[in-house]
Amino acid sequence: MIKPHAFDRATQLVEMSTGHWAGSTSPDYGNMVGAFGGVVNGVLLNAVLSDARAMGDPVSLTVNFCAPVAEGEFTIRTVLQRGGKHTQHWSLELHQNDAVCATSSVVMGRRSDVFSHQPEGLPAVPTYEDSAVMTGFAPVAWINRYEFRYIDGAPELSGTAHAEPVSPRSRLWLRDAPARALDYLSLAAMSDSFLLRLLHVRGTLEPMGTVSLTTHFLATADDMAAQGEQPLLGVADSTRFHGNFHDQQVQLWSPGGKVMATGSQIVWYRQ
Amino acid sequence: MIKPHAFDRATQLVEMSTGHWAGSTSPDYGNMVGAFGGVVNGVLLNAVLSDARAMGDPVSLTVNFCAPVAEGEFTIRTVLQRGGKHTQHWSLELHQNDAVCATSSVVMGRRSDVFSHQPEGLPAVPTYEDSAVMTGFAPVAWINRYEFRYIDGAPELSGTAHAEPVSPRSRLWLRDAPARALDYLSLAAMSDSFLLRLLHVRGTLEPMGTVSLTTHFLATADDMAAQGEQPLLGVADSTRFHGNFHDQQVQLWSPGGKVMATGSQIVWYRQ
Repeated sequence: MIKPHAFDRATQLVEMSTGHWAGSTSPDYGNMVGAFGGVVNGVLLNAVLSDARAMGDPVSLTVNFCAPVAEGEFTIRTVLQRGGKHTQHWSLELHQNDAVCATSSVVMGRRSDVFSHQPEGLPAVPTYEDSAVMTGFAPVAWINRYEFRYIDGAPELSGTAHAEPVSPRSRLWLRDAPARALDYLSLAAMSDSFLLRLLHVRGTLEPMGTVSLTTHFLATADDMAAQGEQPLLGVADSTRFHGNFHDQQVQLWSPGGKVMATGSQIVWYRQ
Repeated sequence: MIKPHAFDRATQLVEMSTGHWAGSTSPDYGNMVGAFGGVVNGVLLNAVLSDARAMGDPVSLTVNFCAPVAEGEFTIRTVLQRGGKHTQHWSLELHQNDAVCATSSVVMGRRSDVFSHQPEGLPAVPTYEDSAVMTGFAPVAWINRYEFRYIDGAPELSGTAHAEPVSPRSRLWLRDAPARALDYLSLAAMSDSFLLRLLHVRGTLEPMGTVSLTTHFLATADDMAAQGEQPLLGVADSTRFHGNFHDQQVQLWSPGGKVMATGSQIVWYRQ
């Protein structure tokens, strides 16, 4: 019997009734406070993908993090708001002890073999094999559930802020640790696995957290099949840090040069 | 008596009871089918900003377009899902004839004078005055409610597709027509005023539509005050067109070089 991957355990749900799911957090993916947001992404998406009414593949996922998801049990309620021939719109809420911790929306879409075009190929970067694994930075459990191989823009953290702000831009190879074949759940989680850019810019671990994160899925089922357990190339950047909030954009590329997902988030910071 | 701007008329709401609003579409902002998505963005955000419970400034807005908003009356229901010291999370639905046409989430945030940094300044572009106004492309009413001055990547439309795909990237100056002082409502609308990139890439008007759009607001009240009626510099791009969907990213800059908002959307297309 093969032991399930920690990610599968962490995103597992029990269907209580139609649109009503129960789950519990996994210490494997613990964060500074509460559960790693990527797994919250994954578990919300799973509540749609596991539903008998789900049509097509995920094309969009927005998660609004209202409060930390504390260690323990939670419930998810889903509503199929509207479905057509081409798309399906879902609204979701994640609750703990009768308080909402996250709200979410998912768009599912029917994909077919129509016009296809990608203006840019894979950025010119060293291969995964030629990139060094990040070590020595694992203040929280979930960091150890991924292998991060930075190409540039690795975090340089200390107790003292950088004299001048450092670039928020990073490029890195990433994959689950141990390896796991990519699916929409892990792609959703990986889109939230980039360190918050403020940390790169300032070099100190400030009070901060993602408040809303949106992922757009460009990968189709055949892209997923071609990907398997290979790493993804991640690119992350921000345009402005101002008035307690900063933006953050990410791209996730297959080693074969397909854009698998793009994402955008807004991050709160205290000071 | 000053006649209100068409945008103010189009985003006007009547409070029926707490969290329950009524409005109607404006022919000034008509689209191919139904109302211009930017005005749907604006009117949804207005249902939060007009609420006595609203705290701080908008930091994030996601709108899921479930169905076209037909000409006529609509209602909006808002739920304040969770509020804290720093942020407030709202969920919204827009209904017409008991059917949901759009779902939405808004995050409000308390802004203060903390760490501020913007890695890049305004791109090197010709000024608004030195850029030519787009003319001759106005298949729908809302296009005439904006002045678009393309710097590069202007749409080249005909009945025949380009022999080779053209770059999805555009840079342009844009403002309301007639001019109107920028606020969060018009910034939300302008973040959805970029033509869909598929149109630039293929050169033909295909059946297509935005299914989900997220805007992150970086501008604070003092940025808004400094902006007034000046134009914004818009930058729009896409990474991949595949399997009936493409992504689209935008940035909106003040002429003074501040990033006012960034956005990301996923667009459906038929063939």
